Amino acid sequence: MSLAELAPQIADLARQCYARGWMLGTSGNISAVVERDPLRLAITTSGVDKGALTAGEIVEIDQRGYVVGGSGLPSAEGSLHLAIVRARGAGAVLHTHSIWSTILSDATVGDGLGIEGYEMLKGLGGVATHDHREWLPILENTQDWAAAAPQVERILAQHPKAHGFLIRRHGLYTWGRDLAGARRQMEVLEFLFEVMGRKRGITWQP
Amino acid sequence: MSLAELAPQIADLARQCYARGWMLGTSGNISAVVERDPLRLAITTSGVDKGALTAGEIVEIDQRGYVVGGSGLPSAEGSLHLAIVRARGAGAVLHTHSIWSTILSDATVGDGLGIEGYEMLKGLGGVATHDHREWLPILENTQDWAAAAPQVERILAQHPKAHGFLIRRHGLYTWGRDLAGARRQMEVLEFLFEVMGRKRGITWQP
Amino acid sequence: MSLAELAPQIADLARQCYARGWMLGTSGNISAVVERDPLRLAITTSGVDKGALTAGEIVEIDQRGYVVGGSGLPSAEGSLHLAIVRARGAGAVLHTHSIWSTILSDATVGDGLGIEGYEMLKGLGGVATHDHREWLPILENTQDWAAAAPQVERILAQHPKAHGFLIRRHGLYTWGRDLAGARRQMEVLEFLFEVMGRKRGITWQP
Amino acid sequence: MSLAELAPQIADLARQCYARGWMLGTSGNISAVVERDPLRLAITTSGVDKGALTAGEIVEIDQRGYVVGGSGLPSAEGSLHLAIVRARGAGAVLHTHSIWSTILSDATVGDGLGIEGYEMLKGLGGVATHDHREWLPILENTQDWAAAAPQVERILAQHPKAHGFLIRRHGLYTWGRDLAGARRQMEVLEFLFEVMGRKRGITWQP
Repeated sequence: MSLAELAPQIADLARQCYARGWMLGTSGNISAVVERDPLRLAITTSGVDKGALTAGEIVEIDQRGYVVGGSGLPSAEGSLHLAIVRARGAGAVLHTHSIWSTILSDATVGDGLGIEGYEMLKGLGGVATHDHREWLPILENTQDWAAAAPQVERILAQHPKAHGFLIRRHGLYTWGRDLAGARRQMEVLEFLFEVMGRKRGITWQP
Repeated sequence: MSLAELAPQIADLARQCYARGWMLGTSGNISAVVERDPLRLAITTSGVDKGALTAGEIVEIDQRGYVVGGSGLPSAEGSLHLAIVRARGAGAVLHTHSIWSTILSDATVGDGLGIEGYEMLKGLGGVATHDHREWLPILENTQDWAAAAPQVERILAQHPKAHGFLIRRHGLYTWGRDLAGARRQMEVLEFLFEVMGRKRGITWQP
Repeated sequence: MSLAELAPQIADLARQCYARGWMLGTSGNISAVVERDPLRLAITTSGVDKGALTAGEIVEIDQRGYVVGGSGLPSAEGSLHLAIVRARGAGAVLHTHSIWSTILSDATVGDGLGIEGYEMLKGLGGVATHDHREWLPILENTQDWAAAAPQVERILAQHPKAHGFLIRRHGLYTWGRDLAGARRQMEVLEFLFEVMGRKRGITWQP
Repeated sequence: MSLAELAPQIADLARQCYARGWMLGTSGNISAVVERDPLRLAITTSGVDKGALTAGEIVEIDQRGYVVGGSGLPSAEGSLHLAIVRARGAGAVLHTHSIWSTILSDATVGDGLGIEGYEMLKGLGGVATHDHREWLPILENTQDWAAAAPQVERILAQHPKAHGFLIRRHGLYTWGRDLAGARRQMEVLEFLFEVMGRKRGITWQP
């Protein structure tokens, strides 16, 4: 699909994420594949309000992250989107800053979060039973994602079955075959984060 | 009522459930009786987004679960809907995946959840006082509901007054005379789950 | 104002309360004064869905609770509305079933809930400073409000400054000069309930 | 911009804040600069419902707080808005009464709240890294903000890098270059309050 076709779909999804409180301030970003070879992505621009995002605030970048369509500064985390698309063959990538992903990635000691035994896990691509253990790697936060891209690629390679990853005190990255698939996986993971966070408040098992 | 009449009502109710966070991802399903004898149900298809559900994504199944109207794969839990309609004479069945039903069915040891003394209980069919003890059986989760249908029927027979049941780490089944009645009972039970879950966070009595 | 003028305003307010989760199922009820002498109230009918309430589901009752306008069964708690209007000179009465009023009235030992020191208290009629202690009586729940009306009147007389009262494991009654004033007071009290409930989860002082 | 241009923008923002539960009852207020020299502000009037705010309920005040345009009583906290605009050169000021700002300012002992290490902090003006410590002063509440204005000015001078301040058991003040900038900073701070409040419920570190 072209930038012109993808941009309004991305803007619509951004407004939905904002309404749920997952892209407040100017946080969060979304991309979708325009072309596979050579790789080109439609991606949200930097520092824009996701609750009022317009199609004109989406740009097209090439595989090096350079703008090749539309105008504006692409998200500083564009290198992460490109790395995920390459590693997973994804058609769309979503990055949310939610309350519960922030809290869980903060409160969890160690380099990953395990989620296991919930029916909702079946909403993840290729998972056919609740009897599944999802392991989401947790990366330490940085402000230089261009430099950190090789580390992200290594972690994606080390965890070939992971459906997303967390950045500590920052948020979630997930993806899908297309925007609808990425949205579905985002909803599943955000639901499970909320379940795990609220359950800890009740059962006191940190 | 015909599939053509029920489908838009089911789609509308699904969108409301999605907005409340009770049918995220592609979770949850809804059915309503088209004909009693022989039994035919209108039911949501499998793997569809409840926030954007259209009337075309509802199919009609017969008493064996075979599609006899519309096109698409009926929910894999169709056998549960059929069992409930037979056992309770319900006109509509609702299945939600909410945060609090997931947490409570997970945190509760034992095969059922007791709820007692709340005014909101009067919203359940045939309950005329808050001085009522509702016992919701909790079933273990499975991926083979066709095989588990006899167990569900046995539990419904053992608990003839239960207004719903929980599936562990999965969600709620409830029902009513029609879609409005099932929705009402869903709202009442989800409210009570949230009350019980949040109260535990305060009073620390697991 | 006439029933015809008040009914759409009441229906609109009911839908807002439903959207906030304060009148789920068929819970909650609303009234407004049509005439003071002899007293006549417009009041929601019993067992109706507040999320889809229409003006036709509001009836007019006289001072004994008999229907004198519109058609339908008035709320079973009509005697409480009449008692409040008489005791406080209110122009409108609101009764909500919220999560936090249910939990706080359940978790609080004793016959009332004290709220003190919050700026939001200034939203209550006649309160000009946060340095105010609001005492909301808690009544035990019953199913015979006609019989309990004298007790309600005694409690209202004993607490002439109370801006509302709670019914245990049931919900809140509050009121105002008109529907807008009652709504304002409802929002203030519900906000404070949520603050107190959530704060207990953090500071662990039951 | 003129009062006529700013008033509908302020009213729209007020309705959004109300919908999120940050301006319930008649709480909260908003201002924006009309002229810098001599200073004139467009500001919400006192005691109005923010969920139904109209442009006619915004007035223009001069640097002494006197109404010079529109009609109505300006917010009693107008002196705070004027002090902030002078001290920070802000173009817009927002004051919210949220659940979490009320709870955190209540539960925090001491004269300020530190927030540190969260990616969302980058949404604050001039903050370029999550490795930032934000210190929000907490002021004791009062009902005489005209008299307290010098204290507010002193605190703003003592904390030149603070992006907002809290009033105990009352709420948040923040600001920005314009209404969009103030809204962005409000969303960032409210998000962080909710993260910190909910995290305490889990990790039990008061």
